[in-house]
Amino acid sequence: MTEQNESKPLELNLVNELPLPSDVSWRFAQANFQPVDVADQLTALLTVEEIAACLELLPLIRRTEIFDYLPDGIQEAVAGVVSLDSLMELLEELPSDSAADLFNYLSPDQQADLLKDLPARNRATIQHLSSYPSGTAGALMTSEISLLPTGINVQRALEILRRTATGSETIYHTYIVDPRHRLVGVVSLRELILAPPKASLDKLMTEELVTILPDEHQQEAARLVSRYDLLALPVVDESQRLLGIITYDDAMDVVEEEDTEDIHLSASVAPLETGLLRTSLVNLYRSRVMWLILLIFANLVSGVGIAFFEDTISAKVALVFFLPLLIGSGGNAGAQASTLMVRGLAVGDVGLGDWTRLLGRELLVAGALGLTMAIAVSPIGMFRGGTDIALVVGLSMVVIVLFGSLLGMSLPFLLHRLKWDPATASTPLVTTLADAGGVVTYFALATWLLGLH
Amino acid sequence: MTEQNESKPLELNLVNELPLPSDVSWRFAQANFQPVDVADQLTALLTVEEIAACLELLPLIRRTEIFDYLPDGIQEAVAGVVSLDSLMELLEELPSDSAADLFNYLSPDQQADLLKDLPARNRATIQHLSSYPSGTAGALMTSEISLLPTGINVQRALEILRRTATGSETIYHTYIVDPRHRLVGVVSLRELILAPPKASLDKLMTEELVTILPDEHQQEAARLVSRYDLLALPVVDESQRLLGIITYDDAMDVVEEEDTEDIHLSASVAPLETGLLRTSLVNLYRSRVMWLILLIFANLVSGVGIAFFEDTISAKVALVFFLPLLIGSGGNAGAQASTLMVRGLAVGDVGLGDWTRLLGRELLVAGALGLTMAIAVSPIGMFRGGTDIALVVGLSMVVIVLFGSLLGMSLPFLLHRLKWDPATASTPLVTTLADAGGVVTYFALATWLLGLH
Repeated sequence: MTEQNESKPLELNLVNELPLPSDVSWRFAQANFQPVDVADQLTALLTVEEIAACLELLPLIRRTEIFDYLPDGIQEAVAGVVSLDSLMELLEELPSDSAADLFNYLSPDQQADLLKDLPARNRATIQHLSSYPSGTAGALMTSEISLLPTGINVQRALEILRRTATGSETIYHTYIVDPRHRLVGVVSLRELILAPPKASLDKLMTEELVTILPDEHQQEAARLVSRYDLLALPVVDESQRLLGIITYDDAMDVVEEEDTEDIHLSASVAPLETGLLRTSLVNLYRSRVMWLILLIFANLVSGVGIAFFEDTISAKVALVFFLPLLIGSGGNAGAQASTLMVRGLAVGDVGLGDWTRLLGRELLVAGALGLTMAIAVSPIGMFRGGTDIALVVGLSMVVIVLFGSLLGMSLPFLLHRLKWDPATASTPLVTTLADAGGVVTYFALATWLLGLH
Repeated sequence: MTEQNESKPLELNLVNELPLPSDVSWRFAQANFQPVDVADQLTALLTVEEIAACLELLPLIRRTEIFDYLPDGIQEAVAGVVSLDSLMELLEELPSDSAADLFNYLSPDQQADLLKDLPARNRATIQHLSSYPSGTAGALMTSEISLLPTGINVQRALEILRRTATGSETIYHTYIVDPRHRLVGVVSLRELILAPPKASLDKLMTEELVTILPDEHQQEAARLVSRYDLLALPVVDESQRLLGIITYDDAMDVVEEEDTEDIHLSASVAPLETGLLRTSLVNLYRSRVMWLILLIFANLVSGVGIAFFEDTISAKVALVFFLPLLIGSGGNAGAQASTLMVRGLAVGDVGLGDWTRLLGRELLVAGALGLTMAIAVSPIGMFRGGTDIALVVGLSMVVIVLFGSLLGMSLPFLLHRLKWDPATASTPLVTTLADAGGVVTYFALATWLLGLH
């Protein structure tokens, strides 16, 4: 969490027009621009070696701020080319959560060398924080917390805060711990400066806190921060000992990251490590190819369905006219149902317990949708093939839309139940499965109603 | 922004097991639970009239806190059944952004009655804030800002803050305005309490600020808060006069809301006003039916394509076996490409200027994907129809995957260019258009290569 607004945002358009990228980047890095803008600029215009060289020329605090905003992949690459001394300085200066991430990017040799020379306090913090697996609340937390003991008054609390403020991510909420480092309460700086100096901190503090365990998923941490409008979420172990805090700005980053992951999964794209333009072509290919190949084989089911009904098709080639329309509609309705469900589960709007109620609602809505769409296509069936075809097409539409919708809503629930990511029930997967169901439904109904067998 | 953590989170599982919803809700509303949990509980278990009755029994501050967390639709309904006196109390006590929202839910008669009786200051604020259209930065801002004049020292600044703290959403950042109410700087409470009492505020403050105009989109406001890790984003008019601030917690809500809207649009579902379970069946039906019907007509293009090639199909019915597989693959690759692009545009990862570079990248990646998939299906073509069919199917696959991908990546750009929401380039839309292209490509290639015309 930065102390906001220290510098003006960079006008990127202007920059893009300038001729000498490395000189320009260097001037921006030195000037009073926001670190995030400088980091973006360096990433866009310079090579890893140039970024490293540019950073080394900056004063330590500025260098650290900018480094902290570089994308993970670039941080990792830069860490591979800078000197051990620079790494040491960065590790000491970075907020502990970022330092732990950086530490995890290093080679085992670099890690060993650094640990040897780091001050004991930093070493312990980094070893501890870097031990939490990526994606957990523990990996997200920082240990730079402002702490107060129990049993003091407001004046003493403010004195301690003033003395320790520089080492804390935020002093707007201060946590009160007992001698065994167990979290017993929180007090806001607002409460402290409004309270009489002699007031007892123990009376002023709020004792009931929203907390999280370090091994919970980072998405849950972000959800709690957002739901309870927290500035920071304390992370505690099973004995209620305070391990760190997760600040709202890190929670916002998690929300964006997790939503991006869900959105990509919704189209069967495996999560990308970095942004679209920065991802290498090979990684982009990899993130897309697996599902496309898998879905080819799922689509073969539709092909087999068609092969099975080849006689029906030969007898009435006009039926093929309605095939894309019918299976497409089932897929589309299924995509809608699965997407509503995946997002509902992701934001905690619906849970496993709502299954039967949602099933009932989906039956009604999908039934109505199927009927509406049957009414929309029947005239076309009538026009192209008469009453018989109109009947087959209309009836198929109702069944196919119902099937697609129920499949679409059920699949995320099933995956959630199996502790998979419900977002794996992607639109392409649902569409492909709905297609197979649609082919069989349509031709089976046609064979039966038109007496074509 | 609340002063965090005042009360413990509610164990919803426990509540669901209890027998008497209204009694239970009432006990929870009174007890020391988080307002957001109580609001959820009331919404889940009680009718609008019961919620209104329950709220009226609570002390004003608690009532306001809980009301503020009720979903928009419920707030509107509750506002329709409570007394004018209650409404007046709520309007006076709510943060100004929420008060303006509430005011906008009221009938013109209620609005006129309330404005007559409201204190002049509140009246002006509410009339001003409620004039910004929903979805803009102006509608999101609150006017409860802690302000300081220029030309004072730190001690005086802290005195003013102590006196005015109760009326502000946050005092952690205080804005410094000149006599004409133009924003000239910001100072954090952290800086104030660490600075010597006699230090000049004008020297201490940061003068370069990230700000936003009130008519910009709320998504842009949220993006700035997230990008620059702000606690609050000042909203200023063209003359740099300070109108209000947007707090980080409101920005987080906007991120969730906008992501949900994009995700729903990605599956051609029109945005829902409330959560999935609370949306009425009629509204759910409406949110889905329009696109489904439109897509039927888009799918007719595929049907017409098939009708055009009916002779080819009659001559070689085995071709239909590969139809779902080929058009499905084009649709899936297109869905991937459009989803990557829509999200990239939404998070500001790519912009209009990146078009040519992205096109080149997509050509390479989609070409590689098409080739891989052609290699995967050719043996099946060989097995079912010999070399000729294998060639047709393989070649069609390459062309169809390329076509789907380029369509998928271009459509969001085109929409963005036309100032539409790029997310309208939904997966079902892209899939349907890719299907039509796929049908024509496949049968045209087959007709030509197999000499079937």
